[in-house]
Amino acid sequence: MREPVDRTPLWMMRQAGRYLPEYRETRAEAGSFMGLCTNPELACEVTLQPLRRYAMDAAILFSDILTIPDAMGLGLYFSEGEGPRFERPLENAADIEALVPESAVTELGYVMDAVALIRQELKGSVPLIGFSGSPWTLATYMIEGGSSKDFAKTKALAFNEPALMHQLLEKLADAVALYLSAQVESGAQALQIFDTWGGALSHSAYREFSLRYMTRIIEQLPREAEGRKIPVIVFTKGGGQWLEAIADCGADAVGLDWTTDIGEARARVGGRVALQGNMDPSMLFASPERIREEVATILESFGSGSGHVFNLGHGITPGVNPEHVSAMVDAVTSMSGEYHQSD
Amino acid sequence: MREPVDRTPLWMMRQAGRYLPEYRETRAEAGSFMGLCTNPELACEVTLQPLRRYAMDAAILFSDILTIPDAMGLGLYFSEGEGPRFERPLENAADIEALVPESAVTELGYVMDAVALIRQELKGSVPLIGFSGSPWTLATYMIEGGSSKDFAKTKALAFNEPALMHQLLEKLADAVALYLSAQVESGAQALQIFDTWGGALSHSAYREFSLRYMTRIIEQLPREAEGRKIPVIVFTKGGGQWLEAIADCGADAVGLDWTTDIGEARARVGGRVALQGNMDPSMLFASPERIREEVATILESFGSGSGHVFNLGHGITPGVNPEHVSAMVDAVTSMSGEYHQSD
Repeated sequence: MREPVDRTPLWMMRQAGRYLPEYRETRAEAGSFMGLCTNPELACEVTLQPLRRYAMDAAILFSDILTIPDAMGLGLYFSEGEGPRFERPLENAADIEALVPESAVTELGYVMDAVALIRQELKGSVPLIGFSGSPWTLATYMIEGGSSKDFAKTKALAFNEPALMHQLLEKLADAVALYLSAQVESGAQALQIFDTWGGALSHSAYREFSLRYMTRIIEQLPREAEGRKIPVIVFTKGGGQWLEAIADCGADAVGLDWTTDIGEARARVGGRVALQGNMDPSMLFASPERIREEVATILESFGSGSGHVFNLGHGITPGVNPEHVSAMVDAVTSMSGEYHQSD
Repeated sequence: MREPVDRTPLWMMRQAGRYLPEYRETRAEAGSFMGLCTNPELACEVTLQPLRRYAMDAAILFSDILTIPDAMGLGLYFSEGEGPRFERPLENAADIEALVPESAVTELGYVMDAVALIRQELKGSVPLIGFSGSPWTLATYMIEGGSSKDFAKTKALAFNEPALMHQLLEKLADAVALYLSAQVESGAQALQIFDTWGGALSHSAYREFSLRYMTRIIEQLPREAEGRKIPVIVFTKGGGQWLEAIADCGADAVGLDWTTDIGEARARVGGRVALQGNMDPSMLFASPERIREEVATILESFGSGSGHVFNLGHGITPGVNPEHVSAMVDAVTSMSGEYHQSD
């Protein structure tokens, strides 16, 4: 990921997604979102769809961040307009005690089958990125029973019974480490940890309840497979203020949302980690000309040399015109060469 | 606000609110939320309620941030579970052209009546803070027609038709300046601008579309009334990364949410502005002992001397036990004295 390149590599969070008509077709065929996730052939199909349209430099496994809690027995389902929900959210210490980290591999064969199939179908064209939610992010859904505005229950547990919360987060960190290691064994060539809700914590609670467990995961991951390094990317949405701390967690790259100036971020972390990001996904609602300008601004802000992976600052929004993604991809591929002449 | 004090002053965003049973009673009497806002006697009553329970050092006008767009004719209403909505959101250039900034004073006599009545009823006990939403925050509701997850329409307008967006924001800034000036004339002794959604912008778009217009407002505000300074507080939720720029907008104090370490913030802005904040509102779901610990941590992080106004990092959440607010208030009043011995 930090190797010399002749242009800035790019991929897009949620690149296999609802903005693509072919995705919506396959999703309809699968009958449900989880039907799509649990069917390796269909998961492989949607993973490959964006690569047929765009010059992306990586594929990312199509799956859900909540597969692990589902494997642990919480009963994931999707309700119209409310997003993901659990039938049996965690309610007490016994529920946490009962969680088995190994479920993340024993129950998730369908994910590993998808990884293996996608890797095979990619035929070496681009690397495959595996992923998982962060322990803190998984914990919020497992305790709240779904999405939340203020994470009141999760934070009340963290603040009032920190030992119990740490027990839960340790189990989740171990489960995520097993899960990501199995993805590497099945063929994943890079890994991303999505810490969607770490940014809802205070500066100190973030370190205690989120970053610490991502560090614990990374310590347990294989650093190499098939003779090549397995880069690990950590992405905390809303984590821009904590960049120096995040850059010390052992990850090879840190994802940035669009609130951070990527040039300033580079100055803050020096060459310690690569930076991934960071165009506002809503910029894809702008005109192709405006998108091109924004890409130019981000490339210029990062500046010359390797260590930048172009991406959005969060997942692409449903409703984006696929032509606008082309504008972004074309801008990155045509304009980034000048920043790599000395590589 | 930067004058020597013998302990750290405090108030709480949304201190007149649903967590108080007496508020829920008055709200029921009013029949609706807007019924409460538009009735000066009832708005005064709920403004005073938290002061009867807690040793708060300021009252804050009870009102809604969307009074200005309502006054401009957009038709504010509240729908169950969806929050505030507008009957006639802005749809085109003609809608923006038709907006009259002066509506913020000609149509909002009920706000000024509430300010005057509250000021009278306070009998000089504590100062009264007036407030408004920021131009960017108002614009998001006026364009989206209500709350939004990604502000797609608002951002598309900002990115594709910046001149039109600037026209809207100029009008809103002028309206807010008129509105806040009228609040001062009616008796408000300090002012806060709530920039609830500025943090959804990129670092550069924040400066262009939000901060610039808060600066424009502050330039138009009276700096003194009744022979005393009128301090202005600016609060951008999610603005921690941009603190240096915010501290230059002309405000006397900057509100911080809980993602920023207040000690680091103080080091970054020096003595240029006072800092307000910044306990995570969800900490009020923790035990009184834990709340006390957190207050101690925040006071210690800020350190000795004046320039800190204790507050939450966002509005108090409905569902908080009022006794837990007592724990916070008692902790601030009992523990902050030691940081003011040299004042």
